[in-house]
Amino acid sequence: MYQLNQILENKIINNLISGFERCPHQLNKPHESDAEIIQFENMQLAVTTDSISEEISRGLYDDPYLIGWMIVTVNISDLAAVGATPIGILISEIIPNDFSDEKLQLMQKGISDACQEYNTFVLGGDTNEGENLVLTGTAIGICIQNKFLSRIGSKKGDILYSTGEFGLGNVYAISKLITHSKNKIVYKPIAQLANLDLIAKYASSCMDTSDGLISSLDQLMRLNKVGFELCRDWQKSVDRNAYRFSEEINIPAWLLFAGQHGEFELVFTIPQELNKSFIDEAFECEFYPIELGKVVSEEKIFLPLYNRTVQLDTVFLRNLPFETKGDVNHYLKVLLEYDSELKKSPNLNFTTI
Amino acid sequence: MYQLNQILENKIINNLISGFERCPHQLNKPHESDAEIIQFENMQLAVTTDSISEEISRGLYDDPYLIGWMIVTVNISDLAAVGATPIGILISEIIPNDFSDEKLQLMQKGISDACQEYNTFVLGGDTNEGENLVLTGTAIGICIQNKFLSRIGSKKGDILYSTGEFGLGNVYAISKLITHSKNKIVYKPIAQLANLDLIAKYASSCMDTSDGLISSLDQLMRLNKVGFELCRDWQKSVDRNAYRFSEEINIPAWLLFAGQHGEFELVFTIPQELNKSFIDEAFECEFYPIELGKVVSEEKIFLPLYNRTVQLDTVFLRNLPFETKGDVNHYLKVLLEYDSELKKSPNLNFTTI
Repeated sequence: MYQLNQILENKIINNLISGFERCPHQLNKPHESDAEIIQFENMQLAVTTDSISEEISRGLYDDPYLIGWMIVTVNISDLAAVGATPIGILISEIIPNDFSDEKLQLMQKGISDACQEYNTFVLGGDTNEGENLVLTGTAIGICIQNKFLSRIGSKKGDILYSTGEFGLGNVYAISKLITHSKNKIVYKPIAQLANLDLIAKYASSCMDTSDGLISSLDQLMRLNKVGFELCRDWQKSVDRNAYRFSEEINIPAWLLFAGQHGEFELVFTIPQELNKSFIDEAFECEFYPIELGKVVSEEKIFLPLYNRTVQLDTVFLRNLPFETKGDVNHYLKVLLEYDSELKKSPNLNFTTI
Repeated sequence: MYQLNQILENKIINNLISGFERCPHQLNKPHESDAEIIQFENMQLAVTTDSISEEISRGLYDDPYLIGWMIVTVNISDLAAVGATPIGILISEIIPNDFSDEKLQLMQKGISDACQEYNTFVLGGDTNEGENLVLTGTAIGICIQNKFLSRIGSKKGDILYSTGEFGLGNVYAISKLITHSKNKIVYKPIAQLANLDLIAKYASSCMDTSDGLISSLDQLMRLNKVGFELCRDWQKSVDRNAYRFSEEINIPAWLLFAGQHGEFELVFTIPQELNKSFIDEAFECEFYPIELGKVVSEEKIFLPLYNRTVQLDTVFLRNLPFETKGDVNHYLKVLLEYDSELKKSPNLNFTTI
């Protein structure tokens, strides 16, 4: 059976929190939801915190406007994934003393524009001087109908959907960190609040794709003790520009699911018996979720690839960024090796090679 | 008249938030309270965020246990200052890859012990790798009796109190950053939740002393358009160990109010007509607040010193850390010069020298 602790990120978190007592008003257990859920009288409050630090120090985010936009988006996306409407966000900024006033204004504009996009507000913050730019956001929201969406609840036969297409996050990362491509990839993801009422009404589980699609599916697999089989036509869920870019640089499109710089879509499962009602209601509101595949009993991620169905080695895929320690060229090289080997051996366990 | 923007810190904050819309559910205006207050149905939620970054990079906090303790304490103190009982805290940690597991465990123990002290819980968090250790906490609480305490409300004649003594924060900073004294100063401040019911019931205004006593009084002065006259026997409010240390190193004790590394006491004002009831109730619960002085109409901070009453140049005192850009030796030198000049000229405006 797959264990949460096979994934280094889960292990690190479990190690950090091992000595902490749990709040009696908290409804979610660790790992079980994208935001923390606190029962308050008859309300469910959702809170979440996320920093942007490595993305800046590694050069992934160098546009101050994008940094401002992202610190709001990453946190609001976690609220969306638990079915919560945002109330506001607190932002702490560590600002180097050589960060120009012009850059600062752009960053604040990114924050302000994102808040407008999500109809939310900066409630407060903190500012410090520091060597490196670090932003930390903490978003607060209220769960729709006081019923939070969690990562737990997928059952065999459920249909797997996403709110939108994938791949732009990863091609953006490749273009910034590896190819330094002149073809600018426009990356300005939007947290998926738009059809949250409907998702909250029908979904059996939900998670955002901030770390890429495969990370999310792997985590849902571990938590629910089920697997996922992606559709034969999974290419339809790859963003057109991302697809074109991956072709240009000879990267197989499926790797755009595997990289860990995501798009902040939601992936969610709908029980089979509710699927018709869900789709009917969705189409009525002009919401067209993408059908990605289905929930299966075997705890694996199956992907139709190279005229077969491969079982992805998600332990390898998720731990690789940690194991390659931020060396993105090496990371991509190993991913491409894995892809070559997959062609020969569809049930490859790459970790042990 | 004193303006908020005379103080560089206020000016920086006003600049950062100038493009932001205000949340319609938010009850406090900027600067008016130590935490943000959000109206939720019939509840007042208090939220606040604070990072620890400069304190680490400058060597002020080098004990991982203290760093953990402080990230909880600084945030819970802000909740206390608005009369809120904590529900929990979210903590984001940026951890350098050479930070040992032993240090990490100590830091987490500091967090865990502080949560126990305040009967609160870590609700969630985030972890990133980074060059420098940075911790950001966001605390959430509920205002007692749904009536938040703000910094606004002091009137002429009100009595000024503190929950405890001052000076340890600043002598700790001197011992760590300047004298590198062998006499270890024990610094483990406690956020003042203990008698909050009573303070919330009676106080006309309240603020914590995280940036030292004079910073807090100056901010209350600007917000309320009143001044403060400290008692002749203000020395009684200096911690005994701090006093002894200041004598040893020839630093006048009043400067322990001026330095900006505080003790997380609360300063609050009680209307004259309620003072007797307040004190009677306080003594009944064995709570002995320290009477610091009184609120006066002239917008100045008066301190009995060198057989006279001096008017402190609080613009100079508050802006000096920014103007000396972290050069603590220079900071202390200028403070001592100011003290020498005060002996000659009690109404000294030092900023213009």
